[in-house]
Order: sequence, then structure tokens, then C-alpha cells
Amino acid sequence: MKENGSSEKELFSFLSSVRSDDLSYDRILSSMCTRPHPVAVRAHMLFIETNLGDPGLFPGTMGLEDELIRMLGSLFHHPDAGGYATSGGTESNIQALRIAKKQKPVARPNVIIPASAHFSFDKACDMLGLEMRSVPLDATYRMNPDTVAETVDSNTVAIVSIVGTTEYGMIDPIRDIAAVAGENGVFFHVDAAFGGLVAPFLEGIPPWDFTVPEVSSISVDPHKMGMSTIPCGALLLRDPGAFGCLNVDTPYLSVKKECTLAGTRPGAPVAGAYAVLQYLGREGLSAIVSGCMENTRRLIEGMEAYGYPRIVTPDVNVATFDCPLTPEGWRISRTRQGHMRTVLMPHVTRDVVESFLCTIGEMNA
Amino acid sequence: MKENGSSEKELFSFLSSVRSDDLSYDRILSSMCTRPHPVAVRAHMLFIETNLGDPGLFPGTMGLEDELIRMLGSLFHHPDAGGYATSGGTESNIQALRIAKKQKPVARPNVIIPASAHFSFDKACDMLGLEMRSVPLDATYRMNPDTVAETVDSNTVAIVSIVGTTEYGMIDPIRDIAAVAGENGVFFHVDAAFGGLVAPFLEGIPPWDFTVPEVSSISVDPHKMGMSTIPCGALLLRDPGAFGCLNVDTPYLSVKKECTLAGTRPGAPVAGAYAVLQYLGREGLSAIVSGCMENTRRLIEGMEAYGYPRIVTPDVNVATFDCPLTPEGWRISRTRQGHMRTVLMPHVTRDVVESFLCTIGEMNA
Repeated sequence: MKENGSSEKELFSFLSSVRSDDLSYDRILSSMCTRPHPVAVRAHMLFIETNLGDPGLFPGTMGLEDELIRMLGSLFHHPDAGGYATSGGTESNIQALRIAKKQKPVARPNVIIPASAHFSFDKACDMLGLEMRSVPLDATYRMNPDTVAETVDSNTVAIVSIVGTTEYGMIDPIRDIAAVAGENGVFFHVDAAFGGLVAPFLEGIPPWDFTVPEVSSISVDPHKMGMSTIPCGALLLRDPGAFGCLNVDTPYLSVKKECTLAGTRPGAPVAGAYAVLQYLGREGLSAIVSGCMENTRRLIEGMEAYGYPRIVTPDVNVATFDCPLTPEGWRISRTRQGHMRTVLMPHVTRDVVESFLCTIGEMNA
Repeated sequence: MKENGSSEKELFSFLSSVRSDDLSYDRILSSMCTRPHPVAVRAHMLFIETNLGDPGLFPGTMGLEDELIRMLGSLFHHPDAGGYATSGGTESNIQALRIAKKQKPVARPNVIIPASAHFSFDKACDMLGLEMRSVPLDATYRMNPDTVAETVDSNTVAIVSIVGTTEYGMIDPIRDIAAVAGENGVFFHVDAAFGGLVAPFLEGIPPWDFTVPEVSSISVDPHKMGMSTIPCGALLLRDPGAFGCLNVDTPYLSVKKECTLAGTRPGAPVAGAYAVLQYLGREGLSAIVSGCMENTRRLIEGMEAYGYPRIVTPDVNVATFDCPLTPEGWRISRTRQGHMRTVLMPHVTRDVVESFLCTIGEMNA
């Protein structure tokens, strides 16, 4: 650290040059994040000072968090769900498993997750001392309810399924897995960090949210398909009272107990998420999801025309291919099986898809 | 959620009214957060799109995080400390205890914390299955090294001390407790979430940072006395390699492993923290700390003139009083012992202190 500080001009000239070393989202097909929506950024700025960790000082912002949870709960067919805004899917998943573990105190607790689960479950199980039973997927890259039924035992404290898997964009058969959870009286967590703001706008998919009575909790990240500013995740619980088991005493704050993982929590991204949902409404969100799905279909069609077949027809806007190319100037990623993986986020417009296909065509020529 | 969305004008008119329901920092003496510095807000905006969870896409921002850690490491006399930007003190403390636990695998691990420790340690010990041994404080509200020595045993995986306690603003006798940690070969974590950006600018306090050889890790929150935007904490480790035990595999990202708690992580507050430290330099930070300490002394003098004695002479800018008043229009808080507690953050200027003392004087008349 310098003794005398820098001038603001010098500092921001440096910061601008640093920022220009980052990639632009224009050519990123590997991320589940996207450029925040302009109304999210504007709302974020308006609430930049706020701290939800001491909500009595920020009753306005606290009301907005409640309203965000209510909007998400309504979208998931349970307006009275309990919930709070987390730092993202990892915190949401950790907290869901903490609750599940506390609800069923056994000596050697285990959790059943699909092989497609995000690596945040590795962290959660490591922290919480849970045996992680990862079950293999079926031929369509979805969790197999029969395998879950074979794996569950009296020490199983939670079953986890995914709505919108990170690698292949699949939605697990929630109702069938819910049945297994129900029969065994096990907490059932749905990780919809990505798909939670996609699935409600898709036609013809089976029920997956709180309409399925065995679903205990849902995580969803407004900072992914909700186009909010980072960090904004949310954890929703069917039974709001279930958060109580996480409470710690909070002397010297304006509230007496808190159940969140973080103490200080930013209100700005919560305002951002609220603003996007309110500004776009169901129709606006639906139009964005339709566009992303249309672009997903177009990319699959274009790649297959070049001889690179899809691995699976995805449920959400993630497309994977049997394609060894590394298209220069673009960021794609690879699944653990080595397949090319692309995420058709809102910043991946139709023009971007065509431009990407041009690159593939040139490499193919 | 509405079907058709709102107009931007209508939305921001509503959001502005919500925001006006929040309290202004002008009359908040109960918080360890403050208004972010204007250069933090400007830098935050410049980096609003960035995600440190996938650093290969944001190499510029990643470099800034490294630089922030280096600046904090230098401030704590160990420029080569390992570290990363966390969501705040709670994540930093959880991660420090995770590392300590992994370094010493015992069947019934325990952690020794002072009774003054922040409630984040309740969360951390609950999550990690650690027995929390809270030791009583001495007459000056500091951790007693003798009590620590009596409490430590072969199952102790970590000892925690505080630099700038939440309730009374004290700095624990770090060297003496470090000696106990050293004799017993125990990981020693210093929670300097608040005091980490105060203590380096105080005259005549004993060594407390990495100059004390037994200090294993330090947490510090730039979003407190660093006047950065929320959320910005940091965890620093003497041995950068020690983070390795937290690594999980991260397929489909631009890096192969990560040790952080969160996945998606905002780059914006990291840029904010970097900007403040760089803009102010040591001299600027020192001037701000001097001002806060001067205001702390003035508040104590003023309160005592009205017959409300200090509970203890604080090491940092937190002042506590034997005073039953609830000054109207102000936010103060109460310690667990019922003492009036005030935090003299940068937004609590000399004028604010005098105005607060006026209110006390009027109530006293």
C-alpha cells in the first residue's frame, strides 16, 4: 500500500485498463452468469449503502427482500414460502442441507445427490460432515428414481434433485423422486439455481416446484437467469418455521436472532433482483426464456449441420456437443465427459449464435 | 409477480420511496458498517458485471483481488500471505476454522474463543461440528491467556482472538495467547474483521498481526472500516498452501479447483476495496482512524461530563457506557450486559457526536 494514496484520475485510469483485461460477455458461451439487466444496475446503485444484516436500520430494504421472496414463492406456486436472499446457490444449498440434517439427527447422516449435482454439494457435505451418496444418471443425463430408492436408508437426511443441471441442462424427474422422498419421510431439496427462472416459462414440463407436495426447499439464483447483479441467490422453504433451527442470538443488532449464513448482507442486489422481476413481469421473463430456448435450438441445428451431434436434447438453455474443436476467440467449456458445453444466456443473442456457427464453419472448412 | 411488468418510471418511484423508509447513517451509532467511500462506489460500478467465481473470464478483476490481498498482507506485515475476498467476516471465520479442523483430524475437535467473539463463531462451530469453548473475559473485557492455557487440550484445533471486539472495542493480548497456541501447536486465528483496518494506524499497541509468528490467519472486512461496498471481507493465511485442503474440483469452469466458500463471487466490491486503499494510502487511512479515535475520546468525555461513565477505555472506536437512556431519534445498541454501545464510524463526524451529546444533555436536564 502506498504511503500517500493516488489521485482519482490516476486510479480510475488504472482500473479501466484492468477492467479491459477482462473478457467481454459477447463471446462467452461458458457461463451461467450474464450482463446484469440495466434496471438491476440502477436499483443496485440506489441501494448501495444498505445492509440486510441489520434489518431494523433498513426496514425499506427488508420489505423489498420479503417482497422478492414472495414473488419467487408465487412463481413456484407457494406465495407463503419462507426464504431469504443468499450470496448464491452454494449458500442456499448449504443452508438447505443444514436444516435437513437438524431435522433428522442421526449418527451417520447421508445425502443422496445426482452425479450431475453442482460442486457446491461437495463443499456442503464436507462442511456439515454428511456422507455424499452420488447416484449415476440415466441415459438422458437425469437422476434415476429407482437408483435413489435403492440408495436411500434410515440415515438419509436429504435427497437432492436438479432443475437445470450445470453440465447438460436437464431437469430431473422431480415427481418420481419426490415419491421416493415421501415414502421414506426424507427432506427433498430442489436445486433450481439455474432453472428456477427458466422452468416456470417452459411449456409442457412436469410439475417440479412446490406444487409437488414432497418438495421441502428450492434454491434459485436471480443473478443467473434473473439477470440481477451478483450476489443474489435465494433459498425458499415450504415451511417458513423450519428456518428457526438455524437461529443464533444476535445481541447488539436491531433484531434478536438470525438464521442466515452471512452476517452483513448487501441489499443492493436484492433491489436489483426485485427490479428485474417487477419491470419485466411474467411476460417479459417468458419472452427472454423463449428467446434463449430458440437460440439453443438454433445452435443445436447449426452444430448438427456441421456434423457435431448434440449429446442430449436439453430441457433448459444449455447445449452440449460431441465436438473436439476449440473455437478461437470464444469461451466454451467442457463437461467432465469431455463434451463441448455452451450456455445460451440472454447475452448470447441470435447474432452471437450465428457468429459462433460461422467460426465453427470456418474451422470445419 | 405481475403479468405485464411495470414502467421504469413507476418502478423507480416505488423503489425511491422504499429506500426513504430506511434510516440514514447520519443518526446511526450502532453499526460497524458505514456509507461506502465515493471511490468505492465508482469502482464498484465499473466492475458490476464481473464474477470472480470464474476468474479465467475476468483476469483483470482476478489480478485486482490478488493485489487487494497483497495490500492487506503488507499492512499485516506479510506481503506473501495467501488469501481471497470473502462475503464478510462470517465466511472468513468459517473458512479459517475449516482449515484448522482439517489440519488436525481428531474425533472430538474443540475451538477456544473469547466470550467476546462475534456470533459468527456460533454458526461456524454449529456447521463444522466443533465444540465451542467460550472462555470468560478479564476485567478489561479482554481474553485471558491463563484461562486459555487452562482450557486447551489435545482436541483443541484452533484458538481464536479478537482485534476490535464487537461489543467493547477491545484488542485481545495477541502475543500472550499466541504463546499458548504455540506451546500447544494449535492453529491461531485472529478475527480482525473490525479492527484490521484500525489497529495498523494506532500508536503504541502491541504486535497483533503476522509479525507474531504463531498467528496462522487473520480475517478483516474492508466493508467495515475500509469503507468499501458490501460484501467485501478477506481471509489471509500465513501459509498460502494451507488453502489447498479446501479445494473442490470445478469442472466446466476456467479454473480446475477452488477453495472459496461461494461459487459465483462479485468482483465489484473487491474493486471498491482496492480503490479505497489505493486512493487513501496509509496516510489517508491513518487520518480517518485518527478522526474516529478522537471522536471516540470526545464522546466518552462528553458522556462522563453528564454522569454516564465509560465501561472500559476501548482500544478501537467503540464506546460503551453505563447509561440507561434511549436517546430519541438515534440508533444506539446494547451489549449483552445491558451497557449502551456506540460505534464511532467515519460517518459519525464530530458534528454528529456533538449533536448526540446535545440530545443526551436535553434528556438529562
